[in-house]
Formats: sequence, structure tokens, C-alpha cells
Amino acid sequence: MQKSTSVHELIVPRWIVPIEPAGVVLEGHAIAIDETGTVLAVLPVADMRERYVAQQETHLPDHVVTPGLFNLHTHAAMTLLRGLGDDLPLMEWLTTRIWPAETALLSKEFVAAGTRLACLEMLRGGTTCFSDMYFFPDAAGSAAREIGIRAHLGITVIDLPTAGGSDADDYLDRGLALYDRLRNEPLLSFAFAPHAPYTISDATFDRISMLMGQTGLPMQIHLHETEDEIRREVAEHGIRPAMRLERLGLMGPSLTAVHAVHLDDREVAMFADRGVSIAHCPASNLKLASGIPRIAPYLDAGINLGIGTDGTASNNRLDMPSEMRLAALLAKGASGRADVFGAHQVLHAATLAGAKACGLDERIGSIVAGKQADLAAFDLSALDYNPIFDVASHLIFVAGREAVTDVWVAGKAVVRKRQFMSDGARAAEGRGASDIALWQNRMRSQLDAR
Amino acid sequence: MQKSTSVHELIVPRWIVPIEPAGVVLEGHAIAIDETGTVLAVLPVADMRERYVAQQETHLPDHVVTPGLFNLHTHAAMTLLRGLGDDLPLMEWLTTRIWPAETALLSKEFVAAGTRLACLEMLRGGTTCFSDMYFFPDAAGSAAREIGIRAHLGITVIDLPTAGGSDADDYLDRGLALYDRLRNEPLLSFAFAPHAPYTISDATFDRISMLMGQTGLPMQIHLHETEDEIRREVAEHGIRPAMRLERLGLMGPSLTAVHAVHLDDREVAMFADRGVSIAHCPASNLKLASGIPRIAPYLDAGINLGIGTDGTASNNRLDMPSEMRLAALLAKGASGRADVFGAHQVLHAATLAGAKACGLDERIGSIVAGKQADLAAFDLSALDYNPIFDVASHLIFVAGREAVTDVWVAGKAVVRKRQFMSDGARAAEGRGASDIALWQNRMRSQLDAR
Repeated sequence: MQKSTSVHELIVPRWIVPIEPAGVVLEGHAIAIDETGTVLAVLPVADMRERYVAQQETHLPDHVVTPGLFNLHTHAAMTLLRGLGDDLPLMEWLTTRIWPAETALLSKEFVAAGTRLACLEMLRGGTTCFSDMYFFPDAAGSAAREIGIRAHLGITVIDLPTAGGSDADDYLDRGLALYDRLRNEPLLSFAFAPHAPYTISDATFDRISMLMGQTGLPMQIHLHETEDEIRREVAEHGIRPAMRLERLGLMGPSLTAVHAVHLDDREVAMFADRGVSIAHCPASNLKLASGIPRIAPYLDAGINLGIGTDGTASNNRLDMPSEMRLAALLAKGASGRADVFGAHQVLHAATLAGAKACGLDERIGSIVAGKQADLAAFDLSALDYNPIFDVASHLIFVAGREAVTDVWVAGKAVVRKRQFMSDGARAAEGRGASDIALWQNRMRSQLDAR
Repeated sequence: MQKSTSVHELIVPRWIVPIEPAGVVLEGHAIAIDETGTVLAVLPVADMRERYVAQQETHLPDHVVTPGLFNLHTHAAMTLLRGLGDDLPLMEWLTTRIWPAETALLSKEFVAAGTRLACLEMLRGGTTCFSDMYFFPDAAGSAAREIGIRAHLGITVIDLPTAGGSDADDYLDRGLALYDRLRNEPLLSFAFAPHAPYTISDATFDRISMLMGQTGLPMQIHLHETEDEIRREVAEHGIRPAMRLERLGLMGPSLTAVHAVHLDDREVAMFADRGVSIAHCPASNLKLASGIPRIAPYLDAGINLGIGTDGTASNNRLDMPSEMRLAALLAKGASGRADVFGAHQVLHAATLAGAKACGLDERIGSIVAGKQADLAAFDLSALDYNPIFDVASHLIFVAGREAVTDVWVAGKAVVRKRQFMSDGARAAEGRGASDIALWQNRMRSQLDAR
């Protein structure tokens, strides 16, 4: 074979955790990326050099490269409400802090500013795609494109009027128009995102179900987050929320249930049987005292489980490495089984499982030829990170997001040596502090005026 | 009053969380430190300038200063075993990984090298004192003095021969000799550290009890870490381990029970009544699947509860900010009460409660006049840390150890702008990578030889 093929970039790290094949840590391998941002090959370095001439070689001698992390559930714009009302019970938190702030501030500009900050934080920490559920998804999508991160945008629906829409049909109509306009944007994808069973009528669910059939879009919904929510739903509908969705024909591989903290054994079996995915948000579930989901039986049943940060108002970091660590620890502690949710399985959850939940696993989620080059490089050279016996478990238990030095989205280096590379990200970073001050001041004056 | 008194250093941060008085965040205040390393005053900046002339002023305009964090339980030397055997059940972890490695490597040199690395990691992350339980406490003490961190050294006792001693009397005799030699070292203090009830005979406990009376030293012991350990102890002694200690007259304010994952209601009441402290190590308890302690009732009962990282083999970071976050989250999630273990209470646990458990609360643990100036400064200016609504909860839920920029121990700046200041720390940092490589290689060759 002639050494003739030119590749856009050759990444030569110390280790690669490709996720596919599962459970593997590659050493002495490189990743070739072509002009379209696609992974061309993952091969031993010598083979790579025989086959390809690289326009650029990136050497990362102390680093492990993983697929970019997939944040399966967040409310990115709420980054402007980071830490608003900590240590409060859920209903007091919502009614005295979050809802008044949102009522006062919610607008396209709020969503744009908050989402820009969220995208910067996520990218810096190795997250290359996030599934977002919030109002004004058009503003969130614009922010994501500006920064250069991949976004899975929820067409948020709620049977309540807000600044983002007057009723369910209005949210849906606006969302569908957005989808029609941006469906071919390479970094964007879409889902229906009805807020939760307790804020969505059967009629609205029926319309969403029909639209899912027409568009092929998946759906994400808050489900079984708290026991109280389940109790109230049972009182109103006579059945538990998951069973209501089953009756409405919505339980299937297109559905991602966010939280799913409280599932009984029958529901675990049903989720597995129908191919429903779960977005596990451990920090949020603990912080709001929603409970501790039984991750071990979920995994044993074979449920596709991804990981999300939730919004910064209930976390308060958009920090997927920290969330991976917490998810691993909690699954072990809650089950009494130290071997539950092993490192490779957690890495799979934070990458490919998230992509699969959103119908994106053909495109992203692992480092294999033909997929988009969404990558994160973690520098493991710090003294505090050594010695290293197992690179995969080091990614879970030792390396924090501060280890991330380089990030690629669709083959484009968006972060190199901890610096943003694109004009859009740099501009957002430059205006970040003043955006934060502006919205914090607005919030104070609006809330004080009440 | 004349503006005549000269102070060694004046620290002018944006915020101070002094821990005493409780629940307070000071703004516009400064901390004056005298030549002996003692806090002279905490006052509004203007008052301070009227009273004192500072030899050095340190301005930290985006920072919050807290007491240095107190790591109430670790095995510092095990830093050389970081991440050895992750995702394994406890007994398999101990018998196939940790014990063989320790048997092969345990020596003064191993403890010195491992403890040096641990001290560097802890200091960099805002920890200024640690309670250590390991073999060769003389080597650990030397390492701590070299680096300039405060150390509460356990005189480790176990009814088993190791490289560190032949039997309980030998460990005790060596430990007492060490105590006699170093009892006046300003940064060192001591405790008896019998390993656990299941490795200590009644006769050994009796000797320790007598020695506690003679020396006034406190005691730290692993207690009720797992249900299995309790079951086995009940089978052997007919009573649960805590009750055995009670019968031996050891339950009192000089005792710190490490882990205390499994306490029944009667034991909770007894701990509170006797003034026993608990060293809560949430990451280790989860990672080894020991269980989830019921922190809410412990706090409700008024038990003095500090926080520890445990060793890096079961954590795998000596990271007190991360441990504070996990402790806060877990207490809420496990109790179903989002208001449990609020930010100020967690900060108290990670500082003054640790000091109190070790009998050091007159000297350290809060920023008040007369106490040693052990301090940590967290820079909250990063975009990822903003906006800020509540500085205390930001320290728990947002700021990681990467925010720590400056650290003082006994009034001496040991870290400034993330750089070590002392020759000892710099030397240890310089040799860190080769120390790690040396011991990792020795471990591999020793274990391969088996």
C-alpha cells in the first residue's frame, strides 16, 4: 500500500479508551481524523505512519483519549442560577427560588447567555455533547453552534404558559419549526422533551406520540424522580407514571427516562424489555434528596443507562468526570457490591450509552472508524494522579475534569492545552463575566421588587 | 490606640468563613498573623489598618479563606498504592492486592516516600492537618515535618506481626518512644491507633486504656465499617464491637470511631452520650461497598462528626473538598431531607470537628484570635464557579480542590499561587515522580516473583 493518503490530524496519545470494543485500553495507538471530522482509523502508531501522511500530528505523551463525554440530561441555561437556593427541600427550592427567578428572567437572551456559559464549562471538562431540556431551544441551539459543541435539543413541552410558549401546542409548533429549520445542522439533533407526566396531559402525550412517528425524533422526560410525584400521579390517574406512559404507547427505545430514581421490580423489567433508556443524574438526586436509584439491578437487567449532570441549580457543576465518579461510588455503596458498575461500564455509560439514548450511537459515542471525531484528552501526569495501575479506573476515581487538556468536536480541536480555539468560544469566554454580572443584577432587582 | 504594633502578615481576602462564630461569612475583613504563627485578630480591614502595620500584605480579591481542612482519617503512605485493585469486593481487594503489596514493600522508606506524596497532595488541596493510621509513624512524622504540614500521628497497633512491629507491645513501645522524642514538635500530635476490634485483644485494649490515662493521648480506631465485621465480632465476643469498647471503658470523648457506617439507634445514643467522635469517610465506604451511614441521625443526636479521605487505595484522591461535597450529597440523599448537613455544618465537620476529635480544637480548626493560623484560600473567580449566591455552599458544591491557591500552616505560607514555598516541599515535589516509579517497579517485580 502506498504511503499517499493525507489525513487532517493524527492524534498520538499514551492511551486510548475507545469504548468499542468494550473494556479495552489501547497503548501505542493513534487516531487519524479526516477532513470531514470523521475518524479514519485507530491503529498502532507504526501502521498509521505507514499508511498516512498527517497534516498535523498531536502528541499527548501523558494522556488518555476517550470519546467526548455525553451529558445525557441538563438544563444548560440554568447555569445563570448556579447554586441558587442550596440546602433546601425540593418544593421550597422550586417555589421560593427557582420558579420566581425563572418567571422574572426567562427570555431568549437569558437562555443564550446561560447556555453559552454551560457550553464553555462542559467543553473545558471533556463533554462534547449534551441533551438539553429548557425553554427557547432556538437560543440554546444558537449558543451551542457559536461555541462549537454538539447539542441534542429538547423541544420542551409543558401544559403551562411561560415566556417560552402559551400552551403545549404552541411549544410544539415552535419546536417543530425550529427542527425544520435546523435539522441538517451537523452538530444539532432534536428530541421531544415533555417536562414530566405531572405537567403533561394525555392529549399532549398523544400529539407527541404522533409527531414522533412522523419525524422519527426520540423523547426525553423527567420520570419517577421522587416518591411524592409518583404518589400524586397514582392519586390522579390511578396508575404509576411509567405505567401511564406504557398505556399511552410511549415506552420504547425512543424514550429516555430522566432520573428514574424509584422503579419497582416490574418497572425495571419493563424498561429493559421495551428498551427504554435512563438518564442517571446522581448529584441532583442526592442534593434534592430525591433518593438513591438502584443502579445495580438496572444494569443487571440490561437497561441502557447514561449519565447526566442535571442543571447547575441542583448540582452545581456541569462536570461529567465528577458525575462518573459519583455514579460509580453510589452504585457500589447502595448495592453492597464493590464490583458493580466497573470503570469500563461507567465510561460506556458516560459516552456511548448517552449517544444511544438519543439515537446518535451511529455517529458518536466511541472512537471507531466512520464515527465523528468527538474526543477528550485527559493528562494523567500530575503527581496527585500517580501511580497508575489501571487507566480506566483512574478516569473514574482519580482524574477530575481539571485533567482535560484537549477536546475535539467533529474533528475540530475546540480546546487545545486548556485554551479555547474557536472565535465563538473565545468571544463567549470574554463576555462571560459581564453576562453573569448582568443577569445576577437583574435577578436581584426583580426579586427584590416583589 | 497607637498604630504601632507590627504584624507578620495581613491577609485580605474577599470573604472569610471563620467557622467560629458558626454560620458566618465575613466580607471586608482581614486576618492578622503574628511572628509565632498565631492569629492575632480577625477584623474589618479599616480597623486592622488602624491598629497594625503589616510586614506583608496578601490580597486575595476573589478568594474565600477558610481554616485549613482537617483530614480526620487517612493512611498517607498508601498513596504509593493509589488505585491498586479498583472495582473489587473488600476481601478480594485486601487479600489479592493490598496485603500482598504491603507485605512485599512495607518499610520506613516506603512510608516516607508515600507520606511525602500524600502531604503534597493534601496541602495543595487545602488540607493542613491529617490524622494518620499506618506503620512506621516515625517515618510519616519526618515526612510531614519535611513538607510543613500538621500531622496527628497514630501509634498504630495490631495483634499481628508486620515489618513495623512484632506484636502489640512492640508497636506500643516503639510508638511511645516516638511520642517521648517528638511530643514537643509544634506540628505533630499523637494518638493511639489500634487497627480495629477484630485485630485487637482485650489485653491490648486494656494496656492502651492505661496508657491513655498516663499520657492523655486520644485514640482512633476503625469501628463498624462493615456489617460482616460486626457479625463476626458478635460471633466471637457475643456483643457488637462498640459495646465491647464500652465494656472496656473506651467509649468517651478521647475516642474517634472511623467509618461507623453501621450504628443502631442505641449506639447512636451511646456515641452522643459518651462524646465519641466519628470520622466519616464517604468515598471509601461507597467504593468498598461498606454501606451508607445514616449521617442525619448522627448529626441530630449531636455526635461530633469529622470527615476523612481514608487512603488512596480506597478513594482514590486525598481530596477533602471532594469529600465534603460527597458527604453533603450523601447525607441528603440517604435521609430524604435536602436540608440535612447544610454547608456551614459540612465546613465545620471538615475543620473544627476534626480538630476536636483529636483534642486539637484549642489550637486549630477555626480562624479566631489565639489559634494557629492554619488557613486555605479558594479562588472563586473562574467562570465555571459563577454566579455566586452563597459562598459557603459554593465551597461545598462548586469549588473543587483545584480552586485552592494559598495555604498557611502555623502562619507560614506553604503554598502561594499554587506553588510550594518551602525547600522541603519543593524537594519532595522534585523527587516525587522518581519515587513513584521506583516503588511501582518494586511492587511489580515483587508481586511477579510470587
